[in-house]
Amino acid sequence: MASITATAAAARASCYAAPAQGLQASQSSSTLTPKTVLTPTTKPRVVAAAGSPLGAFRSELHLSSSNVRASEFLRSEPRLFSPKGRSPSSSPSSSSSSSSRKSPRISVLIICKAANDKTVVIGLAADSGCGKSTFMRRLTSVFGGAASPPKGGNPDSNTLISDTTTVICLDDYHSLDRTGRKVHGVTALDPRANNFDLMYEQVKALKEGKTVEKPVYNHVSGLLDPAETIAAPKILVIEGLHPMYDERVRELLDFSVYLDISDDVKFAWKIQRDMAERGHSLESIKASIAARKPDFDAYIDTQKQYADVVIQVLPTQLIPDDNEGKILRVRMIMKEGLENFVPAYLFDEGSTVSWVPCGRKLTCSYPGIKFFYGPDTYYGQEVSVLEMDGQFDKLEELIYVESHLSNTSTKFYGEITQQMLRHADFPGSNNGTGLFQTIVGLKIREVYERIVAKEVVPV
Amino acid sequence: MASITATAAAARASCYAAPAQGLQASQSSSTLTPKTVLTPTTKPRVVAAAGSPLGAFRSELHLSSSNVRASEFLRSEPRLFSPKGRSPSSSPSSSSSSSSRKSPRISVLIICKAANDKTVVIGLAADSGCGKSTFMRRLTSVFGGAASPPKGGNPDSNTLISDTTTVICLDDYHSLDRTGRKVHGVTALDPRANNFDLMYEQVKALKEGKTVEKPVYNHVSGLLDPAETIAAPKILVIEGLHPMYDERVRELLDFSVYLDISDDVKFAWKIQRDMAERGHSLESIKASIAARKPDFDAYIDTQKQYADVVIQVLPTQLIPDDNEGKILRVRMIMKEGLENFVPAYLFDEGSTVSWVPCGRKLTCSYPGIKFFYGPDTYYGQEVSVLEMDGQFDKLEELIYVESHLSNTSTKFYGEITQQMLRHADFPGSNNGTGLFQTIVGLKIREVYERIVAKEVVPV
Repeated sequence: MASITATAAAARASCYAAPAQGLQASQSSSTLTPKTVLTPTTKPRVVAAAGSPLGAFRSELHLSSSNVRASEFLRSEPRLFSPKGRSPSSSPSSSSSSSSRKSPRISVLIICKAANDKTVVIGLAADSGCGKSTFMRRLTSVFGGAASPPKGGNPDSNTLISDTTTVICLDDYHSLDRTGRKVHGVTALDPRANNFDLMYEQVKALKEGKTVEKPVYNHVSGLLDPAETIAAPKILVIEGLHPMYDERVRELLDFSVYLDISDDVKFAWKIQRDMAERGHSLESIKASIAARKPDFDAYIDTQKQYADVVIQVLPTQLIPDDNEGKILRVRMIMKEGLENFVPAYLFDEGSTVSWVPCGRKLTCSYPGIKFFYGPDTYYGQEVSVLEMDGQFDKLEELIYVESHLSNTSTKFYGEITQQMLRHADFPGSNNGTGLFQTIVGLKIREVYERIVAKEVVPV
Repeated sequence: MASITATAAAARASCYAAPAQGLQASQSSSTLTPKTVLTPTTKPRVVAAAGSPLGAFRSELHLSSSNVRASEFLRSEPRLFSPKGRSPSSSPSSSSSSSSRKSPRISVLIICKAANDKTVVIGLAADSGCGKSTFMRRLTSVFGGAASPPKGGNPDSNTLISDTTTVICLDDYHSLDRTGRKVHGVTALDPRANNFDLMYEQVKALKEGKTVEKPVYNHVSGLLDPAETIAAPKILVIEGLHPMYDERVRELLDFSVYLDISDDVKFAWKIQRDMAERGHSLESIKASIAARKPDFDAYIDTQKQYADVVIQVLPTQLIPDDNEGKILRVRMIMKEGLENFVPAYLFDEGSTVSWVPCGRKLTCSYPGIKFFYGPDTYYGQEVSVLEMDGQFDKLEELIYVESHLSNTSTKFYGEITQQMLRHADFPGSNNGTGLFQTIVGLKIREVYERIVAKEVVPV
């Protein structure tokens, strides 16, 4: 049978095949575009290779006959460029591969440029003020570009766009503005204050490569502003209160993350942001949290069970009865058995380990750093948990810890440390929130690369 | 300067040197025996190479001049075959080496047979019935030979002899027999019931390669039997109640181990042995333990502080309030900073780790297995502690655990498991006592090899 060996970087590519020796690339390029096997629903948009981290690539393609045309081969492998889950029956016959099974194999180059048209969709759920924007900045940084609002658009846009990634805020799908919510007596957490139908339609359209006119919820005015145009990116992140609430939207997600801040920590953070930065009073913050609590539990918290990764933020256990909330215990709960995601681990995969790295080789200031890793179940599903309690004081601690973690999806030694140092000013850069957000960023990169690689490589 | 590269197996060797190319080994063998530089106190006995795991070896010796005779070189390096700590001034002049410093270096083979005359002395302290004999059988097994009492001697001899190792029981230095102790109202633990002067003299003589006539304490009759002849072995193990009690004896030890059985476990073991095997009553065992306790604390327990390794045996913590004493928590307390001993560790040297290996890859029956590793202090000295709680049910568990331990001084993958399986019928083969005894056996082999390597290799 035919086989292709390709790198993950082959993703999102317009490809053409040529025999490895002698055949001109141009000779077959016209007959071998992916479009010849794409189903009608697959978007025709071509993403420019320029500026993309996923440049042109070459790979050996072993055909089962020296006579079979590369185009026929591509047709005989319907999964090769068609969307996930689409039935092979809609593609041309694959009879040629079986008839030539015993023929000598030849090598053919597949030369691809960034043109594969799959948008990978990531969901990020969290309450407001829980570090989603920091997370997003870490994520876009992993892909190498800075994120900024759409150029020339609404200055209060919630959207962030980088070379590879577009982050949309699901608050934009509020169906009721601030006044409307007051009139109807519902919070923004309530599904009735949100337009899930539109959310679903637009996320689906973006996933299919279409451009959409997305509404804008203005956090400053509390009003719904005129829509902004969003083109399909390589990676679409939908972040907000309800990315996993509506089942239809949930089904569109290729990977999902839930930021789960414990009440104690959330309170401390909200005080920090809403009191210090927004001038709210302590009483109004308390009242706001209390008022949101029933809806939060009913509509937001319930999404945890659907997340592929939950980042739980808790008070430290290193200081007995600590109430300050400055030192955090952060747990990354990673779902097992996913196709494109392999949980990170400490020392021995699948066992239970606790680790205080501070010792003879590494000195840490009080109260030190403690890690935990082990298998668990979470909402009835098998998960692995990686936990960090405490915070980094020095660079040595960070690289030391990184060097003992496995399956972190880094591309080179020290990549986590490099990412965290690059954004040392971001909240959480010295503790488990920054560490695990960075690892999840690397994981999302891997999820993306695995998905687009599969679009090219039959497995 | 001259240098010799030699393997540890070069130990205990009668050596002769020859130029690396062409020179017949026989040519210089008569002029180059180690005796030419041995001091008068060094033993002349030659241990046969046959049957020894430390066979003949060859090594490159770089001389500083093509004209200098190998015998002169050996004379100019007084440390080469003289006992540790002896002053170079008692050896012939070393002027030849400095005068020829700039001459071209040549390679000379040193061909050695087992004849180096250093006896490495190991101390093993423990109360009676605490697994010393099992430990000794594990240790001699590491060196490849079976241990048996001296041939044709007293059938009640306490001595065990294998190819490399002689184990003498320090009970043989009881100065009072059972009746004498009763008359004087002292236990066997009391220094007054033991002849430390003779113990010191004989251990010193054996260490120097001399043969001694050692008394024999007959455990069956409780009497002192006629002496038996003990020749200096490669490794002398002195095991018993007081190997580290007398400072002079302690100074002779190259490595020392203390088996520290907690009172609860000791009681359970003593019941097992003295009741089931020796027909003692429960009351007599309790009375015996109570009677021994003050002397034990005063004379035996105090030696722990001098041990290089303490193996502590405690009741399990895996079963709350367990009193059965069948499942054990065993701690290996390893002194840091020793010249010839490097502590074993788990995952990350110098940090603190707890590990439950049972999980996704390894299934264990109740109550499972738990490891701990970390730095600590013990009697004011820096130590590393490796702990195992629980027991092995299956071979997979043993090899899985071994594969995650480091610095165990094995010579090939799985050597610990091999050793433990070879003696699966020994007490403790399924728990931390067997595991750590085996590791200590491997450590003693390494200590031995390092010491004898240093006798040959100037450092």
